[in-house]
Amino acid sequence: MSTGMETRGEPVTPANTVDDTTVDIAALLERGRTLSTPVLKAAVERLAPPMDTVAAYHFGWIDAQGRPADGDGGKAVRPALALLSAEAAGAAPEVGVPGAVAVELVHNFSLLHDDLMDGDEQRRHRDTVWKVHGPAQAILVGDALFALANELLLEIGTVEAGRATRRLTTATRKLIDGQAQDISFEHRERVTVDECLEMEGNKTGALLACAVSIGAVLGGADDRTADTLEAYGYHLGLAFQAVDDLLGIWGDPDATGKQTWSDLRQRKKSLPVVAALAAGGPASERLAELLAADAKSNDFDSFSEQEFAARAALIEEAGGRDWTAQEARRQHAVAIEALDGVDMPPQVRAQLTALADFVVVRKR
Amino acid sequence: MSTGMETRGEPVTPANTVDDTTVDIAALLERGRTLSTPVLKAAVERLAPPMDTVAAYHFGWIDAQGRPADGDGGKAVRPALALLSAEAAGAAPEVGVPGAVAVELVHNFSLLHDDLMDGDEQRRHRDTVWKVHGPAQAILVGDALFALANELLLEIGTVEAGRATRRLTTATRKLIDGQAQDISFEHRERVTVDECLEMEGNKTGALLACAVSIGAVLGGADDRTADTLEAYGYHLGLAFQAVDDLLGIWGDPDATGKQTWSDLRQRKKSLPVVAALAAGGPASERLAELLAADAKSNDFDSFSEQEFAARAALIEEAGGRDWTAQEARRQHAVAIEALDGVDMPPQVRAQLTALADFVVVRKR
Repeated sequence: MSTGMETRGEPVTPANTVDDTTVDIAALLERGRTLSTPVLKAAVERLAPPMDTVAAYHFGWIDAQGRPADGDGGKAVRPALALLSAEAAGAAPEVGVPGAVAVELVHNFSLLHDDLMDGDEQRRHRDTVWKVHGPAQAILVGDALFALANELLLEIGTVEAGRATRRLTTATRKLIDGQAQDISFEHRERVTVDECLEMEGNKTGALLACAVSIGAVLGGADDRTADTLEAYGYHLGLAFQAVDDLLGIWGDPDATGKQTWSDLRQRKKSLPVVAALAAGGPASERLAELLAADAKSNDFDSFSEQEFAARAALIEEAGGRDWTAQEARRQHAVAIEALDGVDMPPQVRAQLTALADFVVVRKR
Repeated sequence: MSTGMETRGEPVTPANTVDDTTVDIAALLERGRTLSTPVLKAAVERLAPPMDTVAAYHFGWIDAQGRPADGDGGKAVRPALALLSAEAAGAAPEVGVPGAVAVELVHNFSLLHDDLMDGDEQRRHRDTVWKVHGPAQAILVGDALFALANELLLEIGTVEAGRATRRLTTATRKLIDGQAQDISFEHRERVTVDECLEMEGNKTGALLACAVSIGAVLGGADDRTADTLEAYGYHLGLAFQAVDDLLGIWGDPDATGKQTWSDLRQRKKSLPVVAALAAGGPASERLAELLAADAKSNDFDSFSEQEFAARAALIEEAGGRDWTAQEARRQHAVAIEALDGVDMPPQVRAQLTALADFVVVRKR
């Protein structure tokens, strides 16, 4: 299998002189997908019917009628990171595969449950599982994917696998905490920027952090190395989420697969919103008035494009858009800096750096 | 702490001459509760608000208004088994405590999700969590309890803890398979006795089996010993469920906390029903006709006591009640026999035997 990387055959050069512009991001993501998808599919096949079918629908392998489909399985940033994680510890990328699959299983467990809790009807351009197969299947298959993640790691049977499972469990608990915070924010008028960052760190940072440590732990890395890799992953997750929050308001629906002004329609207290509300000034105050009225409005569901566009314009005018873009760059910088703390092969470092760059410039 | 057992001070006698009539079941269950509840409460306190409160409500520690309550925490058979499990491997009962708590957490994760999926509004004489705190909290807190179970075991950090977590994960997967089967049975006209037993083995047998092996594994038992203890637990679980199925139709609502004819109201394809349908003869055929008509009826929800009583009488007349009572005794016998395969202290064996006896004669 060509990963687009082994062929470069560069001499080993000091870490900070490797040029990350030579990294082929598409190939890196494709390698993660290619190595992890067969293992993911085999794991899902262990599920009793009809859970196997429901899970296959969720992953985009079949359509709602059960016919084979070639769905959009997502960007696959996490599997790519898990393989690089193994390489960062000096192991072969394949060592990270069970970790990559376990992280994907946990991520998709959370998507299945969150979509149901949030009432989201669309994901990756398709109807969500609860919409197609009902709420009970969304709950049940989510539970099954979570259990499967632990099963896959623990059946390796090594001390390292136990440590990896423990890190995954910690990340999963944070993920759940983050979802609890996210839900509670919807019922509150004001959320501080710090509260929003904490929620996003739990909901997005923790699992991305785990993706970056899990391969290394499976490859025998010590806790200090794993913690440092997690610091990179955590801040990368916050950068990722800041970009997601921008796309959730100003993203191109054709690229994101979501509605226009998606997060505004869902009254999400995302970073641009909380930053705009915290900024003060006329636009910030006008936005606060509008959102307070929206919270009590019975007509919210029939709002026009123009009404959401007006709110988005106020968020931008109050500085929420710029602040969030800067926050993405700040978190990106902290992530990159964390890589200094781990002694890893320079090409792995270049790839982790390039992935971080990719995360902040992506359009979907 | 008095456990009601250390004081007997009998000489060690051969296993099969210990008289299990001297075992104080109430004290045995109380010991499990006393040793595990503080650890369970401390674990639940780790949850971020409002999940800690929702979980405390579920466990009966507070009421719907958040006031302290002294709720019915269930029979606590599983914690009692987990402590005996440690003793069966020659360890102190305390060694089984993290296992007891982890099993309770998984059991309650499944109750939270199952009550929501099944639309059950009452449990242990109280409104269920989704009814009081909403579906999102029932999903979220269930997820959190499941994650907490793994966290609690894995933070022990030993190889034994990893093995225990793996067994718990396997049991959890079976639990989920069983719930999937149970849900699918509701939409089917006919379910065979074997299918029903398989479902009940997954839904009840697997976790009870894990309760009986987890303490031993934490205490250093080898896989053969753990497997044999699981055989006892699995068949005990099937006996337990057969009795539950009898109580689900003919139980005293004051004792069970459920409605009269509870399982019939929920169209459950439980053992007495499937055995009656499989029996043949006039009563069996009449029952089949009635249930087929019920499945299409729009008035089912307004059925009177008499209509359910008539169905229960047909089940009994067709032999479903007797067959299920016999099945409980058969599974009980197989469970007891499995104990021959493990070399354990005779008083532990007597206690496991007495607990098995208790399970088949209980009224709630």
